[in-house]
Amino acid sequence: MVDINAEIGKLDWSREPKGLYEPIGYALAAGGKRIRPTLALLGAKAVCGDRFDTSIENAVLPAALALEVFHNFTLLHDDVMDKAEVRRGRPTVHVKWNENTAILSGDQMLIEAYKLLSHVPAEKLPKVLDLFNKMATEVCEGQQLDVDFEKRNDVTIAEYMEMIRLKTSVLLATALQIGAYIAGGTDEEQQALYDFGINLGLAFQIQDDYLDCFGNPATFGKAIGGDIREGKKTWLWLTASLKEHGTQTVEDVLREYERLGVKKAAEEEIARLTEKALDCLTSLGVNEGTNALRKLAEKLALRSA
Amino acid sequence: MVDINAEIGKLDWSREPKGLYEPIGYALAAGGKRIRPTLALLGAKAVCGDRFDTSIENAVLPAALALEVFHNFTLLHDDVMDKAEVRRGRPTVHVKWNENTAILSGDQMLIEAYKLLSHVPAEKLPKVLDLFNKMATEVCEGQQLDVDFEKRNDVTIAEYMEMIRLKTSVLLATALQIGAYIAGGTDEEQQALYDFGINLGLAFQIQDDYLDCFGNPATFGKAIGGDIREGKKTWLWLTASLKEHGTQTVEDVLREYERLGVKKAAEEEIARLTEKALDCLTSLGVNEGTNALRKLAEKLALRSA
Repeated sequence: MVDINAEIGKLDWSREPKGLYEPIGYALAAGGKRIRPTLALLGAKAVCGDRFDTSIENAVLPAALALEVFHNFTLLHDDVMDKAEVRRGRPTVHVKWNENTAILSGDQMLIEAYKLLSHVPAEKLPKVLDLFNKMATEVCEGQQLDVDFEKRNDVTIAEYMEMIRLKTSVLLATALQIGAYIAGGTDEEQQALYDFGINLGLAFQIQDDYLDCFGNPATFGKAIGGDIREGKKTWLWLTASLKEHGTQTVEDVLREYERLGVKKAAEEEIARLTEKALDCLTSLGVNEGTNALRKLAEKLALRSA
Repeated sequence: MVDINAEIGKLDWSREPKGLYEPIGYALAAGGKRIRPTLALLGAKAVCGDRFDTSIENAVLPAALALEVFHNFTLLHDDVMDKAEVRRGRPTVHVKWNENTAILSGDQMLIEAYKLLSHVPAEKLPKVLDLFNKMATEVCEGQQLDVDFEKRNDVTIAEYMEMIRLKTSVLLATALQIGAYIAGGTDEEQQALYDFGINLGLAFQIQDDYLDCFGNPATFGKAIGGDIREGKKTWLWLTASLKEHGTQTVEDVLREYERLGVKKAAEEEIARLTEKALDCLTSLGVNEGTNALRKLAEKLALRSA
């Protein structure tokens, strides 16, 4: 399969005006796991089996890159809104440049995502654009719910799960579906992969919450306990039902998570959702694509940073 | 022709989460001249002549609305970047809500623009998306140049004209071209209308600069002299070559503009560019569409607020 990082690296950000494009190159060069474009390609591979070849890969690639650029656009703007200073171990764009740069270069990244998307085969473009637009809308809705939750003290676990479905899962799910659709997958195959992505995303986000508390500080890329300090309603927080938010130190809260069994419950929930994701793949049978998706799901569920 | 304000009013922003969609409804309800969607429809009318009918109008309408939503997205984010407190006589979104809301609801508006765009006839979608993406990119580049110019003291009139071509003109020009293209106009007709839009936009922006200095305070919607106070490199400023920026009062600068003949030069430049725009319409002949475009150009050149 094509090297995603190499393909991202081929995108040219040396254009003028530099103030607009350099921050985009900086943001995209930070690396990360490139999960979304990988899922788009694996979605294609999963429905093609042995039919998967370079021509299918080339048809999916622009959409795969669009999804990665879109994801990094959301990070840029989220970091401004969260006043986050570090991302993947480096200063965020609004720290290295300024807020206005993060806003405008972020806007341009969203447009660049649509430019990449426009390169999918013309006959597939209407549906791909619809899927992408629906996903992008849901991601913004999820971000808004996340913001709303910070001011509320009665957020339920069900509401939280819906928020992370929107904010995190639908992007993974749509990546898989778009890849499958471009590669000629049936509606049922697209749906199975979409559902796999939804559950994988839920597991992934709760894992994120978990790592923010119990991750390895050396490899986590930012300070442990950030969510606790910011008063984020995470899965662990809501499950623990700790009401006196803000009055405890990070260490106190982490101790409570252990004492109340929330740490263990999170581990079990991540495992349960990962299993549920894997179940969605059954109907697709065994091939290189589904095998790689299974491996990826297991790896993500076990990641420590 | 369809009532643009009524069509904008039909867009539903009562969706959840309210924190995301209410600011979009607020921004779009502010009115304004709706020039961009009008130009899209008139572009179609200009190439159709008597053939223009409701089915053509309906094909162009989603793109026309997309252009208006896109324009208002740029206003939302520009107002954050410029820390502008008033827009069309009302508090800006980041004042009425907050900056994060203006960023996120603005992002969603850009996505909504693409959602509207996706409703153009499928066979026209690839080119319309390309034209729209190119335009959106150029608008962001223009905004970045505008920001860059604030820190520079050697901006030339030629650089300024290129900046306003990108920031203002290409959106008007692309509106006309997209309308013409969807309505089946030839490449030459599309180009003529695009060129009309470019020159109209240049005239329009210099008129904006002019009104910021010499507009009617009662109808202008914001304080006179804002550009001078902010140190903006406007056409008038660059033509006057006033070097001691920031040391003079608004009244001093306005007096200098009159004394140096810059006020008159601006009026002449607006008239010259409007003439140049009108010349572009010659090849399209006389019909209801081109007549309306001529009227619109003359009205814009004479507007006082």
